[in-house]
Amino acid sequence: MISRNKFKLIRSLEQRKVRKECGLFVGEGHKLVEDFLPVFDCVFLAATSGWLAAKGDWLGNVLGDGVELHVVSEDELRRLSLQKHPQDVLAVFRRPLHWDVCPRLSADVLCLALDGVQDPGNLGTIVRVADWFGIEHIYCSQTTVDVFGPKAVQATMGALARVGVHYVSLSDLIGGAEPGLVVYGTFLDGVNIYDEGLSVGGLIVMGNEGNGICAEVEGLVNKRLLIPNFPNGRATTESLNVAVAAAVVCAEFRRRVSRT
Amino acid sequence: MISRNKFKLIRSLEQRKVRKECGLFVGEGHKLVEDFLPVFDCVFLAATSGWLAAKGDWLGNVLGDGVELHVVSEDELRRLSLQKHPQDVLAVFRRPLHWDVCPRLSADVLCLALDGVQDPGNLGTIVRVADWFGIEHIYCSQTTVDVFGPKAVQATMGALARVGVHYVSLSDLIGGAEPGLVVYGTFLDGVNIYDEGLSVGGLIVMGNEGNGICAEVEGLVNKRLLIPNFPNGRATTESLNVAVAAAVVCAEFRRRVSRT
Repeated sequence: MISRNKFKLIRSLEQRKVRKECGLFVGEGHKLVEDFLPVFDCVFLAATSGWLAAKGDWLGNVLGDGVELHVVSEDELRRLSLQKHPQDVLAVFRRPLHWDVCPRLSADVLCLALDGVQDPGNLGTIVRVADWFGIEHIYCSQTTVDVFGPKAVQATMGALARVGVHYVSLSDLIGGAEPGLVVYGTFLDGVNIYDEGLSVGGLIVMGNEGNGICAEVEGLVNKRLLIPNFPNGRATTESLNVAVAAAVVCAEFRRRVSRT
Repeated sequence: MISRNKFKLIRSLEQRKVRKECGLFVGEGHKLVEDFLPVFDCVFLAATSGWLAAKGDWLGNVLGDGVELHVVSEDELRRLSLQKHPQDVLAVFRRPLHWDVCPRLSADVLCLALDGVQDPGNLGTIVRVADWFGIEHIYCSQTTVDVFGPKAVQATMGALARVGVHYVSLSDLIGGAEPGLVVYGTFLDGVNIYDEGLSVGGLIVMGNEGNGICAEVEGLVNKRLLIPNFPNGRATTESLNVAVAAAVVCAEFRRRVSRT
């Protein structure tokens, strides 16, 4: 039986402060949990008997020592869950501490930086975009929402197991990068991305949903890009959603490399 | 003073059933309301004195007769609002009935079709994508979430004022289209979109978040496309978010036209 204190702890992992103090986060649903188990340290797992029956053998190989394991009813799972629509399995993982050691930027490798992205759904979707386009590291300003929050984790659809997310000072990061690094950003007064030469590697900075890239980081961008609307210059929506814009830019970088 | 019944009515517009019965929907925030007012019939508007002071003259020109207008405190607005973070203005509009008369598909015009998109945030984001890329009509299956729900409306960021959204039977729609219409869909076994000739017009079908395009509609798709991941063929996330995929496909269609 799951203790009352454990119930309380898991539900409190909805709060960033608690997640930070305990170094823990929650992942839910078979897709996510199956992606996470081989990668992140699991400390607690509650699943329906159906999921355990299907995955028991595999689970024995990926679970480490000292994991608290529970077979639960759908009703118990519903009470544990941080989601509106609980699924068949919920697990608590340790935050990967090695992500705090931030890998240095290289001019040859394509990475993303997020400056103040506020919506956890957008952040999770961007992690999924990065995974699709083979981008292994995302650097987030301290003003960016926590990727270990339940909404962001679920929106990654498991991609968080394959993309490192690092919280840093973006100006220190870019300042300390090797010479020759191209820093890209999207702006309404940028150059049409389809008219611009793009390097194979570099850093693509995406900004806050309402305010874009902050002035300090904007000063470090050395190629200002625009995703052209259609017909180009027509009065439309002021901007694209940040995850959508990140995807269009990443797709174009990868298209160029694949064509050469 | 806003009557208790009015409070109740507005809050009940959160439910699809009520919206359908009354033919009304809610838009919030100055950006959205200012985009909607010249386009949709407004029946009720509640705003802070600050917004009214700034917009009063303009408002006089766009508001029709018989609009119920209230200056409200931030606290009253909070009680009216269907959003977590209420803004400076909330308005109730009539659903545009002419959207029920569905414009016929033409082979020369690029349109989007959504087959069972379930998340209102995704739907709203797709409307915003359509607006950016100059797509004037979106055809939604009856299984697609209601675009007039508060989450979808807000996610359009006002783009709903410029893009018509029509609920139809997609198979009847495609069946009744003129010969020569190309129907595109994205599938994991599709042809790399960057290797494929794309027509200027046509219909791009996007499917449900979990299950993709249903079998009946899939049978009507005559060009199966793939957004390649990177490196192409690498094991990654199973798919992109539907709004993200719609954006990458629309961007590529429009890039081709702009290059020729």
